[in-house]
Amino acid sequence: MSGTAQSGRGRVVALCGGVGGAKLALGLQQVLGPRLSVVVNMADDFEHLGLRISPDLDTVLYTLGGLSDRQRGWGRAGESWHFMEALAEVGGETWFSLGDRDLALHVERTRRLAAGQTLTAIAADIARRFGIAAQIRPVSNDDIRTIVVTPDEELAFQRYFVERRCEPTVRRIRFEGADTARLTREVRDALAPRDLRMVVICPSNPFLSIDPLFAVSGLRELLAAAGVPIVAVSPIVGGQAVKGPTRKIMDELGVAATTAAIAKHYEGLISGIVIDSGDVAEADGLALPVHATPTLMTDLASKVALARQTLAFGDRLAAQADR
Amino acid sequence: MSGTAQSGRGRVVALCGGVGGAKLALGLQQVLGPRLSVVVNMADDFEHLGLRISPDLDTVLYTLGGLSDRQRGWGRAGESWHFMEALAEVGGETWFSLGDRDLALHVERTRRLAAGQTLTAIAADIARRFGIAAQIRPVSNDDIRTIVVTPDEELAFQRYFVERRCEPTVRRIRFEGADTARLTREVRDALAPRDLRMVVICPSNPFLSIDPLFAVSGLRELLAAAGVPIVAVSPIVGGQAVKGPTRKIMDELGVAATTAAIAKHYEGLISGIVIDSGDVAEADGLALPVHATPTLMTDLASKVALARQTLAFGDRLAAQADR
Repeated sequence: MSGTAQSGRGRVVALCGGVGGAKLALGLQQVLGPRLSVVVNMADDFEHLGLRISPDLDTVLYTLGGLSDRQRGWGRAGESWHFMEALAEVGGETWFSLGDRDLALHVERTRRLAAGQTLTAIAADIARRFGIAAQIRPVSNDDIRTIVVTPDEELAFQRYFVERRCEPTVRRIRFEGADTARLTREVRDALAPRDLRMVVICPSNPFLSIDPLFAVSGLRELLAAAGVPIVAVSPIVGGQAVKGPTRKIMDELGVAATTAAIAKHYEGLISGIVIDSGDVAEADGLALPVHATPTLMTDLASKVALARQTLAFGDRLAAQADR
Repeated sequence: MSGTAQSGRGRVVALCGGVGGAKLALGLQQVLGPRLSVVVNMADDFEHLGLRISPDLDTVLYTLGGLSDRQRGWGRAGESWHFMEALAEVGGETWFSLGDRDLALHVERTRRLAAGQTLTAIAADIARRFGIAAQIRPVSNDDIRTIVVTPDEELAFQRYFVERRCEPTVRRIRFEGADTARLTREVRDALAPRDLRMVVICPSNPFLSIDPLFAVSGLRELLAAAGVPIVAVSPIVGGQAVKGPTRKIMDELGVAATTAAIAKHYEGLISGIVIDSGDVAEADGLALPVHATPTLMTDLASKVALARQTLAFGDRLAAQADR
């Protein structure tokens, strides 16, 4: 491992999906400020009502901008829903809820994309306007679309996740467009070894939010070449996936919803894994460095605490590698 | 004049722009119900934030659907403005105000247009959903755009009207696309002589809202062939244009802002004109039948009263022509 890894200094790259991951990203931002780059999944993105919706990216922007609704778990705080009421009156599609304030981001992003701006440039500008310290980087400016293969049909992710409420059985998940999508220059720059301290895989759904990042050609190779610790934070807390359909999907894909299964999923990719203190009994079976700490993030303090624990663990792994 | 014109029965076609015209159209709807067709200007329409905005059509839909804000004079009652607040936060264009509820109509119309529906079909469906009794008919499904020629530049109408607050001097107004735009089948059907009682030109701005209707080839000829009275209601009340920039524009175009000037503008087209009781001194100079009555529409009762006066005047003109 390279001697350039700097304990307590240097840049950190977080790989992140939506809600669960964004909580840790917020904690990391509190600790690292502008030394944090968040590489965000955009395979959940879709076109709806003629608008480009980027659920994970927006969750990260709202969360790191202090605008997110913590009770509801998605969207903006202080949101109103008059647009949706009126949309129902005029016969529009209402299965995907868009708040009045949230809508502005979708309308403005759609306008800018049509005017030729990249998703990367737009995310950077919005992040600046929201006063976000970290660099927010969609993994690609090319289209990648998560397709859920069910026994009866193939469903675009949001159709499966929101409209069908994760009800159909998941046979397989594929990432349309990932084979030709390119990492952005900004993501490549963020992962350049110089000043890089570590990479953190946030506790997002590995199958839905993190896998599509690795489906983009080049990311795996860049991580391997970076010469820094790669630390995953398990999304499993006390045997339960905290948020979303992770457990149901893992069952249907024939993967046990355990920390061990998460570790196995990331095998060959990560240097170590942070697991919940409640899952410490599972640590014995794991063939890689493990750090156990409370991983349930209920408030800002617990997000910052998990961020600090994760960074310290990564620094220890780097120090061991340097010895 | 044809003997098929039926006093107190038959269909009425109203030609209409936005706010001023829509008030009379509401009065006419109260009296006539489904026997009213409203042919609406769409030359003010524009693309904004990637959305198709149809200001006059929407004013008619909201007014006849009982959804309009009577105090503000445009948009919906009980409106909220969270979208606009958030749009400002993300750096969007905020010179044109779009309410949270209003936005649903623009988003849904834009979606349906992109899916291949016509403006006519969309307006008919929205009118039905709003419980509107009258037929609401945009004059054309083809693009017509009002261009205001100023000393310095040519401005799309809403840029002149809203963004520039009618400040630049108007040299000329032209209607781009009108030479190739076609009347819709529905407008032609509405103007077919069978069962047609009369045509009412609502008290909209003649230069901005009514002229673009007549700029579409065929309308003038259909009116001439219809064989029914064509009654204009003057937008001038006591020497003042009630709403909008009519007076300033008339001044700049070298037209006196008088009822006489309005009558002259419609010369050769109309059978008679309804003027405000306060402008009755001007009636002497007019070479066509005049009916004077209070034309200021402040509440539903005054809208219905003016509608009844206008219809009765038209019926008298028809009876005189039949004699």
